[in-house]
Amino acid sequence: MRVEIWSDIACPWCYVGKARFDKALADFPHRDQVEVVHRSFELDPHRAKDDIQPVLTMLTEKYGMSEAQARAGEENLGQQAAAEGLAYRTRGRDHGNTFDMHRLLHLAKEHGRQSELLDALYRANFAEERSVFAEGHERLVELAVSAGLDADGAREVLADPDAYADEVRADEREAAQLGATGVPFFVLDRTYGVSGAQPAEVFTRALTQAWGERSPLTLLQGGDGDADACGPDGCAVPHS
Amino acid sequence: MRVEIWSDIACPWCYVGKARFDKALADFPHRDQVEVVHRSFELDPHRAKDDIQPVLTMLTEKYGMSEAQARAGEENLGQQAAAEGLAYRTRGRDHGNTFDMHRLLHLAKEHGRQSELLDALYRANFAEERSVFAEGHERLVELAVSAGLDADGAREVLADPDAYADEVRADEREAAQLGATGVPFFVLDRTYGVSGAQPAEVFTRALTQAWGERSPLTLLQGGDGDADACGPDGCAVPHS
Repeated sequence: MRVEIWSDIACPWCYVGKARFDKALADFPHRDQVEVVHRSFELDPHRAKDDIQPVLTMLTEKYGMSEAQARAGEENLGQQAAAEGLAYRTRGRDHGNTFDMHRLLHLAKEHGRQSELLDALYRANFAEERSVFAEGHERLVELAVSAGLDADGAREVLADPDAYADEVRADEREAAQLGATGVPFFVLDRTYGVSGAQPAEVFTRALTQAWGERSPLTLLQGGDGDADACGPDGCAVPHS
Repeated sequence: MRVEIWSDIACPWCYVGKARFDKALADFPHRDQVEVVHRSFELDPHRAKDDIQPVLTMLTEKYGMSEAQARAGEENLGQQAAAEGLAYRTRGRDHGNTFDMHRLLHLAKEHGRQSELLDALYRANFAEERSVFAEGHERLVELAVSAGLDADGAREVLADPDAYADEVRADEREAAQLGATGVPFFVLDRTYGVSGAQPAEVFTRALTQAWGERSPLTLLQGGDGDADACGPDGCAVPHS
């Protein structure tokens, strides 16, 4: 079974939702047969790379919240994160463009380190005092290394703005095709979708349901019903 | 849409079948949205690594064919290959253990070079005079490099017998679970299966059918129907 999770590093509910999903997955009896793929989604794709703002300023300017509303929202998110055992700085965080981080996550996917890098990026963005946006590529290289990637490989990808750019955009196109308007968005075997940081029980139910409904394959045959194949008893003789 | 193809490098029908499938895919209007994944299957998993035999000897000893039958089978396979524009040496080829090649194909997958490496391995095994089995790792490194992989990376994987071994075995387990007893075995979106090197028209039909039946997602909701998510208009406020 395959679970695809669309998310953004700048999305607090994605941070909380991943922890809730991971909890459900850890208790799922068939977890060894579940492949998890992280897909890219940018909440703020049109923001310039050098346009870095404090989160509270972004919330008041972009979404028209009052400062009190913005602060209350962050405090509430902090509580939800804490309930999942996650550290969350409710003040002093930055907001910025996450495209490079998504490109790096595609590199990490090729090395089987995607979940590790996503965790490192979330932690850096939501829990640590240093800004994940303000220090340029070397901060991201450091995080890539902490997730088990090679520093030079990460540096090369970051230096080339085209590297994995198509992969990021393909993920985003696919999210739109699947009807996702927000993140996190979970897709199980392209059959079931779960939108938002639902409680772990909802993910458990979705995993169980999708697992139970895995359908046996329908075999499609050629006109003569014969199969030119090789098996343990040798290869079929051509019937031309 | 995702197409998974189980195959073995030592399988002539897999060589022919890939060409037929590739032809159907090249003409498929939605080919840009089709992801192809090659999965491992060994026809002769218990053969020792140093047990290399001429194919004709293997056919007579392992499958009890007469030498005339074995020769006729190879001649016929050569004709089928030629019909797809593929070179095929009907005499003088070797047979051996392909586990290391499958491990290398999993490395190639991580670098987006799996189809290129599989083509290179097929060509080396079926069309070239040099044995792909007899020259040890350096021959495989050479082929990996021809497919766009890094020589040192390939050498490292080949030197460590555990590298990607679990991935090869997981593919083989999954083939058995899906009911594949021979290869090539094609699985479309885990819904349709095509067994054997069917004519390109069968693959066209399978692609068209699976594409047309891609189902919309069923959204599973939490108890309160609410979604803690972030979208273009900001993040939902926690409702704890």
